Amino acid sequence: MTTEEIKKKIAAAVQQVRATTPLVPSITNTVTINLVANAQLAVGGSAAMVYMPDEGEAMAEIGQAMYLNVGTMSTIYAETMPRTVRALAAHGKPWVLDPVAVGRGSLRMELVRQFRSFPPTIVRGNASEIITLASTWGLESSSDGAGVRGVDSTDTVAAAEQAARAIASFIGGAVAVSGEVDLVTDGEHVALSYGGSELFTRITGAGCSLGGVTAVYAAVAEPFIAALTAVQMYNLAGARAAAASQGPGSFERALRDELYLATPADVAANLFTLK
Amino acid sequence: MTTEEIKKKIAAAVQQVRATTPLVPSITNTVTINLVANAQLAVGGSAAMVYMPDEGEAMAEIGQAMYLNVGTMSTIYAETMPRTVRALAAHGKPWVLDPVAVGRGSLRMELVRQFRSFPPTIVRGNASEIITLASTWGLESSSDGAGVRGVDSTDTVAAAEQAARAIASFIGGAVAVSGEVDLVTDGEHVALSYGGSELFTRITGAGCSLGGVTAVYAAVAEPFIAALTAVQMYNLAGARAAAASQGPGSFERALRDELYLATPADVAANLFTLK
Amino acid sequence: MTTEEIKKKIAAAVQQVRATTPLVPSITNTVTINLVANAQLAVGGSAAMVYMPDEGEAMAEIGQAMYLNVGTMSTIYAETMPRTVRALAAHGKPWVLDPVAVGRGSLRMELVRQFRSFPPTIVRGNASEIITLASTWGLESSSDGAGVRGVDSTDTVAAAEQAARAIASFIGGAVAVSGEVDLVTDGEHVALSYGGSELFTRITGAGCSLGGVTAVYAAVAEPFIAALTAVQMYNLAGARAAAASQGPGSFERALRDELYLATPADVAANLFTLK
Repeated sequence: MTTEEIKKKIAAAVQQVRATTPLVPSITNTVTINLVANAQLAVGGSAAMVYMPDEGEAMAEIGQAMYLNVGTMSTIYAETMPRTVRALAAHGKPWVLDPVAVGRGSLRMELVRQFRSFPPTIVRGNASEIITLASTWGLESSSDGAGVRGVDSTDTVAAAEQAARAIASFIGGAVAVSGEVDLVTDGEHVALSYGGSELFTRITGAGCSLGGVTAVYAAVAEPFIAALTAVQMYNLAGARAAAASQGPGSFERALRDELYLATPADVAANLFTLK
Repeated sequence: MTTEEIKKKIAAAVQQVRATTPLVPSITNTVTINLVANAQLAVGGSAAMVYMPDEGEAMAEIGQAMYLNVGTMSTIYAETMPRTVRALAAHGKPWVLDPVAVGRGSLRMELVRQFRSFPPTIVRGNASEIITLASTWGLESSSDGAGVRGVDSTDTVAAAEQAARAIASFIGGAVAVSGEVDLVTDGEHVALSYGGSELFTRITGAGCSLGGVTAVYAAVAEPFIAALTAVQMYNLAGARAAAASQGPGSFERALRDELYLATPADVAANLFTLK
Repeated sequence: MTTEEIKKKIAAAVQQVRATTPLVPSITNTVTINLVANAQLAVGGSAAMVYMPDEGEAMAEIGQAMYLNVGTMSTIYAETMPRTVRALAAHGKPWVLDPVAVGRGSLRMELVRQFRSFPPTIVRGNASEIITLASTWGLESSSDGAGVRGVDSTDTVAAAEQAARAIASFIGGAVAVSGEVDLVTDGEHVALSYGGSELFTRITGAGCSLGGVTAVYAAVAEPFIAALTAVQMYNLAGARAAAASQGPGSFERALRDELYLATPADVAANLFTLK
């Protein structure tokens, strides 16, 4: 794929979501669930959030794609998440895994290990989460750099490239690593996307809502394009929002506006490079 | 009731909430719980959100009205919601049911069926939810048009009129159907309320927070007036907010401002017609 | 401590949080969890929200301080909260208790009683909550004035001074009472902090997010200074936000901006008096 071909596909994905309003349900954490839904709606998708096992299965069937985020564990997830990923596999639906805080908590680790057998189409995380996930799934031995402190990354995006490639190849999909510069890979191609704002670190749910929006694009595009489109959308909207903001409150409001206003051509034209 | 009489009652409801700050607790979904509480506070009410059975019962006793939303099911709701609606009946308190996504999920269906024996004072939902609820309660046979896709309606408000009338007559209260034009009925009278904005579909919680605000007015007014007052408030505030917004982020902020700023006379004067 | 010494310590606390980004995890209610996290991020902290027992213990170990809020009870909290406060005691970590709606609900009361044996470093609540907590812990007999209606206080800050002093002395820490004028005491000193806005009562989570921010400062300062710094920050940011707002929506956005923008000197210079 050339840069020009990728740009065309990105513009098409943005356009198709706006035209078809795909239903993209989530099982996600309670802190950022509101922003995830609002970001999905802002880019043109339709959201639905569930907790119960039978509802997860039902959503796997009627949704065009799904978003699973393990940020806040709840007892019922021990049953809901495994049943949902099995249903997603059975129905051949794409889904995005957001391995928030992977490495901490017994239930979270048990679930993430199970996902290895029913893998996601796309993984989105910060550098530390991607490195830890690769290690948890036995895909990389050199995970000594990984450190998870709460939900913030202590590793750089560049340090996570090998882990990201390994995961992408293993799942046969794509991985997006969030950071100052974002990296997207399908195991072979590696794209770097630029833009965004430091203010993303001063609001909660920036990463989660990016994951939710990635799932929206996964409903209409191949994994690498879906992941890159979402990252491009966030880098563009984030930069525009920061220019119109005084602090995190006005930034979050402006971000939701810009996710709604960005045109397909704008998103495609945001700076990215292929390694 | 003439249009003029209704307008006077609407203005009085808006005024009385501001003057008395009624306590209106909720058992609601986790996605939009924050906006529900904030909308209730913006119009002048007092909010409290609970999950546990004994707290639901306690709130049924001390609250002036309650709001129950079945959008995100949780295991504990199997006990909390039935005990709460029994307590509401025992204390003769008005309450609003928001049958979000009714038709999907075994626990949700079990609870909604139970509510038939301890019915709400007001039901607020989109067209598909109202049609499905009437069918679930055996009040209508012509429910072939009903379709629930996630939480969005696939039916029109007009198509839900008969179901809305049937439910309103059965519960001896009122039903509000949300859509491009909103319909409110007590089974006999049918009011259509105009205004709002397309941006309501690009934020999460527009319908839920309208339901929460409906419960606030149910604390001070008869069901038909309470439901119509809330719908008028949302159509007015939504139209004003849209005029001051660039996208969904600024719209939600402006909506909360306008809910706070709207005067009783403004809300009464928003366009509505009686069929 | 003189007023000037206190001002220096307040400025140092604001500065040190910005410089070190302390990790301050929370176990908090689902209504306001998003604003708690966002406020903590806005002042420069790092947030993480947990529900599961083993995660509470892990956070007690890796966090620099914690925030526990009993506003919305969930079954799992019966195990998570006691194990977490034991771990906090074992690791000698400071923590803030927000006794939301204390006096209501059997699980909430059971937990709050247990905290007496593993006491918090700081308690933050409205007047009714502070009076009820002192009574629940057997620290005061004159609690006849206490009334909790939902989550709003029906008592004045002045009426809670004795209860606040009693709690502060018992825990060997500090207590902050929120109201039109805020009171902070370590049992001996009593500071009154001025500012804020009536709009704090028209958004949900004002008190909770103040509690979360108090925990952030508890990571870097002694209890009395931490509690006073947070209160000063909120009174300053709230007054500035109100001046730039039309209603509760724009107020919340502006509040998050002002929490981010306030300088150490600004926070120290906000009006407070020592009794």
